[in-house]
Amino acid sequence: MSDTTKQSTEYFPGIAPVRFQGTSHCGDLSYRHYDPDRLILGKSMRDHLRLAACYWHTFVWPGNDVFGSGTFQRPWHAQAHPRATAMELARKKADAAFEFFTKLGVDFYTFHDVDVSPEGDNLKDYQRNFAEMVDVLEKKQGETGVRLLWGTANCFSHPRYAAGAATNPNPEVFAYAATQVFNALNATHRLGGANYVLWGGREGYETLLNTDLRREREQLGRFLNLVTEHKHKIGFEGPLLIEPKPQEPTKHQYDYDSATVFGFLQQYGLEKEIKVNIETNHATLAGHSLHHEVATAIFLGIFGSIDANRGDPQNGWDTDQFPNSVEEMTLAMYEILQGGGLVHGGFNFDTKVRRQSMDEVDLFHGHVGAIDVLALALERAARLIENETIENFKQNRYAGWSSTYGQQLLSGQVSLESIAHNALTDLIDPKPVSGRQEHLENVINRAIFG
Amino acid sequence: MSDTTKQSTEYFPGIAPVRFQGTSHCGDLSYRHYDPDRLILGKSMRDHLRLAACYWHTFVWPGNDVFGSGTFQRPWHAQAHPRATAMELARKKADAAFEFFTKLGVDFYTFHDVDVSPEGDNLKDYQRNFAEMVDVLEKKQGETGVRLLWGTANCFSHPRYAAGAATNPNPEVFAYAATQVFNALNATHRLGGANYVLWGGREGYETLLNTDLRREREQLGRFLNLVTEHKHKIGFEGPLLIEPKPQEPTKHQYDYDSATVFGFLQQYGLEKEIKVNIETNHATLAGHSLHHEVATAIFLGIFGSIDANRGDPQNGWDTDQFPNSVEEMTLAMYEILQGGGLVHGGFNFDTKVRRQSMDEVDLFHGHVGAIDVLALALERAARLIENETIENFKQNRYAGWSSTYGQQLLSGQVSLESIAHNALTDLIDPKPVSGRQEHLENVINRAIFG
Amino acid sequence: MSDTTKQSTEYFPGIAPVRFQGTSHCGDLSYRHYDPDRLILGKSMRDHLRLAACYWHTFVWPGNDVFGSGTFQRPWHAQAHPRATAMELARKKADAAFEFFTKLGVDFYTFHDVDVSPEGDNLKDYQRNFAEMVDVLEKKQGETGVRLLWGTANCFSHPRYAAGAATNPNPEVFAYAATQVFNALNATHRLGGANYVLWGGREGYETLLNTDLRREREQLGRFLNLVTEHKHKIGFEGPLLIEPKPQEPTKHQYDYDSATVFGFLQQYGLEKEIKVNIETNHATLAGHSLHHEVATAIFLGIFGSIDANRGDPQNGWDTDQFPNSVEEMTLAMYEILQGGGLVHGGFNFDTKVRRQSMDEVDLFHGHVGAIDVLALALERAARLIENETIENFKQNRYAGWSSTYGQQLLSGQVSLESIAHNALTDLIDPKPVSGRQEHLENVINRAIFG
Amino acid sequence: MSDTTKQSTEYFPGIAPVRFQGTSHCGDLSYRHYDPDRLILGKSMRDHLRLAACYWHTFVWPGNDVFGSGTFQRPWHAQAHPRATAMELARKKADAAFEFFTKLGVDFYTFHDVDVSPEGDNLKDYQRNFAEMVDVLEKKQGETGVRLLWGTANCFSHPRYAAGAATNPNPEVFAYAATQVFNALNATHRLGGANYVLWGGREGYETLLNTDLRREREQLGRFLNLVTEHKHKIGFEGPLLIEPKPQEPTKHQYDYDSATVFGFLQQYGLEKEIKVNIETNHATLAGHSLHHEVATAIFLGIFGSIDANRGDPQNGWDTDQFPNSVEEMTLAMYEILQGGGLVHGGFNFDTKVRRQSMDEVDLFHGHVGAIDVLALALERAARLIENETIENFKQNRYAGWSSTYGQQLLSGQVSLESIAHNALTDLIDPKPVSGRQEHLENVINRAIFG
Ligand SMILES: [Co+2]
Ligand SMILES: [Co+2]
Ligand SMILES: [Co+2]
Ligand SMILES: [Co+2]
Ligand SMILES: [Co+2]
Ligand SMILES: [Co+2]
Ligand SMILES: [Co+2]
Ligand SMILES: [Co+2]
Repeated sequence: MSDTTKQSTEYFPGIAPVRFQGTSHCGDLSYRHYDPDRLILGKSMRDHLRLAACYWHTFVWPGNDVFGSGTFQRPWHAQAHPRATAMELARKKADAAFEFFTKLGVDFYTFHDVDVSPEGDNLKDYQRNFAEMVDVLEKKQGETGVRLLWGTANCFSHPRYAAGAATNPNPEVFAYAATQVFNALNATHRLGGANYVLWGGREGYETLLNTDLRREREQLGRFLNLVTEHKHKIGFEGPLLIEPKPQEPTKHQYDYDSATVFGFLQQYGLEKEIKVNIETNHATLAGHSLHHEVATAIFLGIFGSIDANRGDPQNGWDTDQFPNSVEEMTLAMYEILQGGGLVHGGFNFDTKVRRQSMDEVDLFHGHVGAIDVLALALERAARLIENETIENFKQNRYAGWSSTYGQQLLSGQVSLESIAHNALTDLIDPKPVSGRQEHLENVINRAIFG
Repeated sequence: MSDTTKQSTEYFPGIAPVRFQGTSHCGDLSYRHYDPDRLILGKSMRDHLRLAACYWHTFVWPGNDVFGSGTFQRPWHAQAHPRATAMELARKKADAAFEFFTKLGVDFYTFHDVDVSPEGDNLKDYQRNFAEMVDVLEKKQGETGVRLLWGTANCFSHPRYAAGAATNPNPEVFAYAATQVFNALNATHRLGGANYVLWGGREGYETLLNTDLRREREQLGRFLNLVTEHKHKIGFEGPLLIEPKPQEPTKHQYDYDSATVFGFLQQYGLEKEIKVNIETNHATLAGHSLHHEVATAIFLGIFGSIDANRGDPQNGWDTDQFPNSVEEMTLAMYEILQGGGLVHGGFNFDTKVRRQSMDEVDLFHGHVGAIDVLALALERAARLIENETIENFKQNRYAGWSSTYGQQLLSGQVSLESIAHNALTDLIDPKPVSGRQEHLENVINRAIFG
Repeated sequence: MSDTTKQSTEYFPGIAPVRFQGTSHCGDLSYRHYDPDRLILGKSMRDHLRLAACYWHTFVWPGNDVFGSGTFQRPWHAQAHPRATAMELARKKADAAFEFFTKLGVDFYTFHDVDVSPEGDNLKDYQRNFAEMVDVLEKKQGETGVRLLWGTANCFSHPRYAAGAATNPNPEVFAYAATQVFNALNATHRLGGANYVLWGGREGYETLLNTDLRREREQLGRFLNLVTEHKHKIGFEGPLLIEPKPQEPTKHQYDYDSATVFGFLQQYGLEKEIKVNIETNHATLAGHSLHHEVATAIFLGIFGSIDANRGDPQNGWDTDQFPNSVEEMTLAMYEILQGGGLVHGGFNFDTKVRRQSMDEVDLFHGHVGAIDVLALALERAARLIENETIENFKQNRYAGWSSTYGQQLLSGQVSLESIAHNALTDLIDPKPVSGRQEHLENVINRAIFG
Repeated sequence: MSDTTKQSTEYFPGIAPVRFQGTSHCGDLSYRHYDPDRLILGKSMRDHLRLAACYWHTFVWPGNDVFGSGTFQRPWHAQAHPRATAMELARKKADAAFEFFTKLGVDFYTFHDVDVSPEGDNLKDYQRNFAEMVDVLEKKQGETGVRLLWGTANCFSHPRYAAGAATNPNPEVFAYAATQVFNALNATHRLGGANYVLWGGREGYETLLNTDLRREREQLGRFLNLVTEHKHKIGFEGPLLIEPKPQEPTKHQYDYDSATVFGFLQQYGLEKEIKVNIETNHATLAGHSLHHEVATAIFLGIFGSIDANRGDPQNGWDTDQFPNSVEEMTLAMYEILQGGGLVHGGFNFDTKVRRQSMDEVDLFHGHVGAIDVLALALERAARLIENETIENFKQNRYAGWSSTYGQQLLSGQVSLESIAHNALTDLIDPKPVSGRQEHLENVINRAIFG
């Protein structure tokens, strides 16, 4: 069966390319707010958002969960093609994926090595299959114009990684992971990927009783330095991104949140090399708002990209749902715009439809609604940037620190003793000033709702 | 009224000094397990634990909470002495405190500046009152042999600190806090304090909408450098300790947990100067076990001291209860012993009796039970150290990293490419190995329960 | 000093009555969306929302928290009137409150007995003071047209209630609480209150070790029956409302959530007599969404009223913040409208400004923004009702249960055995059908954002 | 292949039957505390605990999780027998299971229908296979003396149950579930099961947007009445048990916790028919302690049995770990003993070894340690029963309710008005009394640690 034959199969028949049709349109599968070439603050929506759909949840996952088996009957999955080889199925999956990306109208996609190509029986198979599929992807990219936001290696699903990849007690597992990352980073480079992501799903512990935290951190520090060195060697110019997550599948993960990652990066001299890919769901699992994680990463200088999928506020695991809160996303978007906007990064949908949403059309409903949420958030955040109320309020609030007195305190040229001496001499008695939180929250809502 | 007169008042009449009487004794107020001079791993229990009671919850707090007024009728509080001046009350409180410390038999105590002395109407009053009470405390220490584990300044209760102390938008508040810390650190030095603690109760934000994270972090970095410089100038040799807490009273606190503090300290060149005072309740509020926080701080080289008070596993605020889990404390104690034991730090009871436990004897029940819990945990942890099962298991588990192969991977002399090349050549196929978590948990229980 | 003199003092000078001015108006203190007499689904906004401001947080609370003292300098508080008696202060507070209610334009208010009148030294004082202040309130209501949404008795702040009110181990405390509720319910009746609320802030336990759950439940069952009997005796026609809360101040509260309350009410034959006052913040503390609590109470037939104050998603205590999420409130409002709308109940603001928001104007910012959020939610929810997409989807989804087959299964006339027999005979093999969650979430957003 | 042949295969070679050997024994796989025939409060340990191991986690689960594939290579799983039929594999699994139960020395086991027998292609296959395997199980029980604690039907894993079983929008799914329960309850009856369990894993909602709570509750009420009627018809004398769980796999489950289940049972007249099977992990996911859930179920009269598996205090999903806290289990055990002990129920291990614990011996480590924890908890709880301190404290604390005054208040013969009248006449002024929480916590620790 030739490539041509495969491409002639339509995996989403009856679904037309999703287009911007505005709010007066009645149909379900159109963009009401995402108008890719509309300029916001002088930049097109598409360039602001750099939207990406992911391979794994959307094209690989069969709809299973811990308590039940798969509910999906994807026309590109094995049960629909009982006699197809693994490589044939990988090509069908690529066809379906690029049909989806194209119909959806996202500019980017993301993948793990083993999403796009079968692992085979050993490392040789792995490398050969992957190389072959990278050719396929390259061709698809060329045909469709869809670009790679980031590639990554799955170093967490195979049993060999049960006790970690870089942080495994067995150095051979470290080497195996290094081999996958070597291949996945090379592939990402070749495919013109804008970033390369490392998610340390098993880099953590199940119990401290069998874990040597010091050794494991050293291993991880070395691993990331190896990757950084390789990146420079091959001339890959996109950022390396760590994706923080506090727990699940492990009890505790080493890249807990942005502040924790910042401490780690500094220890290994990597804080200028590696940034973070912040996921909404991981932020909330770590006890933070998305707003917090984005603002923190930006002011620490390590903000890279976003996985826009949210969690359920009442559930304590990674539900990877489609973002549906304009209110939540507007705050994050405001920080991103205020920080200069996305450069290499983008908004990736590391999202999955619910297990009950088993139709292919549900994949469209999920993504289309989420993209409109981001478009709305972008537009509302731009209003906040333009009216400057928030920024001006902050400037005024801290104005004292720009005075001679404030500057002196920060200068490093006065001692604790002299500060105390002057305070006593002047009998300073500073009074609290309203922080106007309620007013500022109203300012946000005014930008969102008018 | 003279000092002598005051000391003749007994605030805990009918309560005899608490002594070790072993497990065959029937009375409530004796130590069943804490035998101060008993040697464990060659060091006395008292020197291992360095127990401290705190001033604030035990001698200052009236038993109020957010939904109700104080339930305590302490004989040293104002309502029992309607005509006493603030300074007279401060002296009574000191009498009560040292009677308590002595009867309890703890070797250490801890205080905030404003716990021991009235703030007065302005900074002059503050400084004079505090100086006078430091004299009183010094005398009390001399008379009783009770020592100061650490002093600290309360830069969070007064309305001026509503928007932060070092991180306040108003530089005068920074200066006010600096003045308090200057006085409290000097007092701690004079009183022979073993450490000095900084708890940033208001160093955080209520809303990001009015907060400049970058400025506030700079302010905090400068503040801690000022304190560090002053410490060296006056020759204070104890560690400075930050006490991490994730939230409450603020929505988010900058010293969230040990890993976050480590990142902050590195950024301002303080990671060799400042350590952490880990509180059980704050660990669990941050989504960590105490075991995790202690192990993390030790391997990061920033472990300092412990506030032993626990939270309620089902409540999301700081309940500051007495530690009552030998199981929980044994794991933390094991890490501490494995890490070389407490040097400057100790186990402080930043604990409060429940609002319903309004009798003075309840203060004794709380502390006595907690001290026995720590004594049991110490003894059980020592068994774990002695039988070496945990440590040996870890050594074996990571043995591969001591091989030539493992050492080479960590050496920095091989590249990602050469690792991948060799992995392919050898077709490595590492197999998972059991982590034996269930067995190791049994080892712990065997040490605790036989 | 006469009443007339007091009323001439303006407590919120410079703040004009807040009016609807639409979204084109620029000022801060106007309604952009709350247009009281605008009809939504044939009923005015004011009659849909039945807005109420509360006495306690807004006029009583001094701005303290567990870690700090009060930051507010209210012109009606004691420190502004050092020589005023408690009753004079109570009258000033009432003046301020009704000036606020009137300027804000809410139709209702809510109070606890001891918010409006000083407790005095004993029950006689309590009763006399309260009676006097009820006269004052009655006059104020007459003058302003502001009505009472509900009254309640504070049976949780005084030390006597530390171990519970109705559930106290001491029957005299039960009697004391009964006396307060007797007075507060009578007062509510006289003031034309639309409901009467019982919040069992201390009806729970701190530790099971000293708690007899069976006895305490019996006591509570009896107490609520006493109140129910009294209500009928005096001819009070409004509902009695329990306000569920899972914890805080106690470790565990008996009225955990709506489903728990339903179980309790059935046990004591009260499920037709007593309804719930659902608070957003308590819903989320209990691990539920507001949407869940409202939908649950409605389908169980016990929905009464709403306390609209929200919590902080990252903090585990009752922050009682102003509602600011149109997205969250739209879902709750949809259920309420679908359930027939509010009859006796209303939207009460059991909200408090942040401790840093110490200016009187902040009270306005908080309430005005919140009222606009509710108005927006009402309007958006009405769109959902009108377009019927959600309701129609549900009707279709369960259509099978209206078939003969479905009706038979529910009829009670077939046995498990016959169902199994028929299933086998027919070899039934039902297939899963998409639940369209992503699509329905988009439907919600389309109603909110267009 | 004959049954005899199969039984000759040893699935746990090298593991001898686990015996009580006391605390002086050094080996890992012996009981240090569980001495089955030792009398505690006049009843043998085995009769107190009624220990059960489960089929699903231990013999069915391949060690996968949401982020990774199976790590186990069980000698009774398909990959070890590539040519075996499904029924042959089911027999091997039964051999392994009963070898395990016997070597472990538990008196009971538990299963779901589809754990023990393959579902086949349709309901006929299902019924035939299951009947055949019930014969096998009956024979095994006879040979080994191992009894069935409870059986249950898996109505949550198959895709048909994605939207619920009894609460499915499609009545055919209800009928399918009814058919499974019909078969599983009959099988449980025939096998002499002591209870029958219903776990409603999918009886809940993913989103309220597509859910009719009222209909689904009616369906569930009918379903449970059908099962109850059938139970009586066939003469099954054990209790029916609902297993509460708040969420996972669904966002919200209808059998949230014991109090919620109590409300549901009353509504459908089932509170005398159905009890609860409380799982430690589900208790903590619901925001409760195990102690709370057990005490609540007992005082509501619906306590049935225990699933002893715990969660991880820092993780928000069902980790189903082996119980390892004597402290936690002692409190639950105390309530059970105080409530009269287990009658039909038992302690079931719905536990799974960690994914990294992939050796068969780890199954033994997990269970053996857990059984010793329960034995210790039983012994410690018995001390609490014997010394009566807790019970006596409670009796004294509530003594006032046994007085004439207290009895009168509860009698229903006094009105709210007369209580208030008397309170005023007597000017009652009850004072708070210490609840002695700290002391009582020490009493617990004294029972546990001496
Ligand atoms: Co992600
Ligand atoms: Co995720
Ligand atoms: Co502390
Ligand atoms: Co604390
Ligand atoms: Co409320
Ligand atoms: Co509240
Ligand atoms: Co279970
Ligand atoms: Co479970």
